[in-house]
Amino acid sequence: MSSVRRIGVLGGGQLGQMLGLSAIPLGIECVFYDPAPDAPARVAGRHVCAAWDDRDALARFAADVDVITFEFENVPAASLAFLAQEKAVRPGVRSLELTSDRIKEKEFLRSAGVPVQPFANVASDADLDLALATVGGHGVLKTRTLGYDGKGQRVVQSAAELAPAWAELGRKPCIYEAFVPFDREVSVVATRALDGSTAVYPIVENLHTHGILFRSIAPARISDALAAAATRHAKAVLEGLGHIGTLALEMFVADGALVANEIAPRVHNSGHWTIQGARTSQFENHIRAVAGLPLGDPGAPEFAAMVNLIGGVPEAAEILAIPGASAQFYGKSPRPGRKIAHMNVVAPSREELLARLERLEALARRVNRLA
Amino acid sequence: MSSVRRIGVLGGGQLGQMLGLSAIPLGIECVFYDPAPDAPARVAGRHVCAAWDDRDALARFAADVDVITFEFENVPAASLAFLAQEKAVRPGVRSLELTSDRIKEKEFLRSAGVPVQPFANVASDADLDLALATVGGHGVLKTRTLGYDGKGQRVVQSAAELAPAWAELGRKPCIYEAFVPFDREVSVVATRALDGSTAVYPIVENLHTHGILFRSIAPARISDALAAAATRHAKAVLEGLGHIGTLALEMFVADGALVANEIAPRVHNSGHWTIQGARTSQFENHIRAVAGLPLGDPGAPEFAAMVNLIGGVPEAAEILAIPGASAQFYGKSPRPGRKIAHMNVVAPSREELLARLERLEALARRVNRLA
Repeated sequence: MSSVRRIGVLGGGQLGQMLGLSAIPLGIECVFYDPAPDAPARVAGRHVCAAWDDRDALARFAADVDVITFEFENVPAASLAFLAQEKAVRPGVRSLELTSDRIKEKEFLRSAGVPVQPFANVASDADLDLALATVGGHGVLKTRTLGYDGKGQRVVQSAAELAPAWAELGRKPCIYEAFVPFDREVSVVATRALDGSTAVYPIVENLHTHGILFRSIAPARISDALAAAATRHAKAVLEGLGHIGTLALEMFVADGALVANEIAPRVHNSGHWTIQGARTSQFENHIRAVAGLPLGDPGAPEFAAMVNLIGGVPEAAEILAIPGASAQFYGKSPRPGRKIAHMNVVAPSREELLARLERLEALARRVNRLA
Repeated sequence: MSSVRRIGVLGGGQLGQMLGLSAIPLGIECVFYDPAPDAPARVAGRHVCAAWDDRDALARFAADVDVITFEFENVPAASLAFLAQEKAVRPGVRSLELTSDRIKEKEFLRSAGVPVQPFANVASDADLDLALATVGGHGVLKTRTLGYDGKGQRVVQSAAELAPAWAELGRKPCIYEAFVPFDREVSVVATRALDGSTAVYPIVENLHTHGILFRSIAPARISDALAAAATRHAKAVLEGLGHIGTLALEMFVADGALVANEIAPRVHNSGHWTIQGARTSQFENHIRAVAGLPLGDPGAPEFAAMVNLIGGVPEAAEILAIPGASAQFYGKSPRPGRKIAHMNVVAPSREELLARLERLEALARRVNRLA
């Protein structure tokens, strides 16, 4: 048995559900802190339903668990600081701090030797001209904090559009990033253990629709050299953050080179394929890391892919009739733009994978409601 | 989503726990009926803690679920008959009836074209001579019902030992079976869907210690011809029983031929390796079958093995430090002879599998307490 018997998880969404399901076989119970009464993770562990600023509930939660982690990175900083005084938080507060602000994140990436596109801080009208001079007239303006799934961002096609875009985003502190004319979007999911050892998953190729991940393929159709570089970058990020647990580094492939887009300091949607496709899932490796246990093999014996179901689901039988396919329903009520399930598929060859994937994508396109 | 949303499971042991964990991703909730307050499955679904003869509790349980299955085959016949009037029981009552009595089981196997060793019914003193004439003086005497893990049986080395062995077993109705000087023990785990389609897992090679399964290796080291015959036998059993769900057919390999030993009409310990080792686990395929869903691919992309932890467990870190290894702790208190956890291991080659397996077996031998 592990000496860590109970892990407190901040957030109780589908990521929590999958963490909880992978903790149970290890003899570890997850306790999910989430203000939502219908938190999807409640089927995979105990659920503490309380507000993020409820100090009594936070204190009881901390007292009840051996170590704390999160599946939701927008936990209020004050709550997190309070919890961190009581119990170890893994990954550390540094992982959250450096990734919750897009400017700090890009500066960290650059300092870790990971290539990033030109970017500029937009905090006042005076910053707009400097930003245009640094980045150019084709870019993406994003709020520095709290954005996800394409929310809180505007594409800028010409210099004249930057000021109006900033007004549309409520003149909040923003980052203005050069547009990257990418060939592919890829991500690296990787885990770092308490002893510093790392497990890097095969590089994943992603496709987003309306800013939301639609499907992932592993391994990505990129050169071995690029895959090796992506792996190095992921390790540099894990080590630079002193991260304990799983994270995802999202990157673009542009002109045959990698450009880092962002870090998700937690288990990630582009790693869901690992549940059926890798020897150890990203969720189990996160639990192992947080519990201080040795990591499992992140390798994949076959080809794998994942397709998100967003706002709607087909019949389970339609999914499962496709060879190599499996389904994971999160128990969330359908709402346009809301991820409510995903489908995984494995196959012994890339050709077979792509044929099966086409059938899954057709199912998803039929039911998905993005907005 | 599946139209079956809630499956009632009779029994809440580790098999129930693993069924429940594989049901949750499919959006299916398991409700476990088990008189034990600390039933291991309670972490993977709702637990109804009531006696097997509590008609009110049974009625409420049946009303609450869409379909009923079991992970424990010694459910009292009257309780099962009562439940079967309320909701579909899958696999059917026939699977339980024909496998809960060793004489009926062997007669069924023979009728299904599956080779069995000579056997005889022992119900009275008068039967002893006939049994010796049919079977010979070297055999195994087993109670017809309620035996498991080597309990309720006696090895007979000579004709003179049969009568005393029967006395030791309380002169209960018994089967006397010829001793099979086997080279290997194998089993076939297989699932049959509601539409009659089947999924047969790679044949497993088993090693028992003191009548309890110690370890399984998949695929078994047997010829392709023998593996094909074992697969045919498993299909014949599934179809002969009209079984819906997973079962295991245990066989001996003796003189290059298969001899059926017994049927477990449920998910089985020799199929635990499928959680990490097969594309779809025996548990998920059982849930799929019971819910009327298409079955998943039972194939294994790599080599796999399982070792039971009986009466004791090592530190989780010791297990997980072994490449390719995973662990499943059932949450049961240790007691000699009690299965409380298992370890799985996968590897890309048989040589590597056997090297890793040796390390796991050494761990198990250090902690196992068989009696």
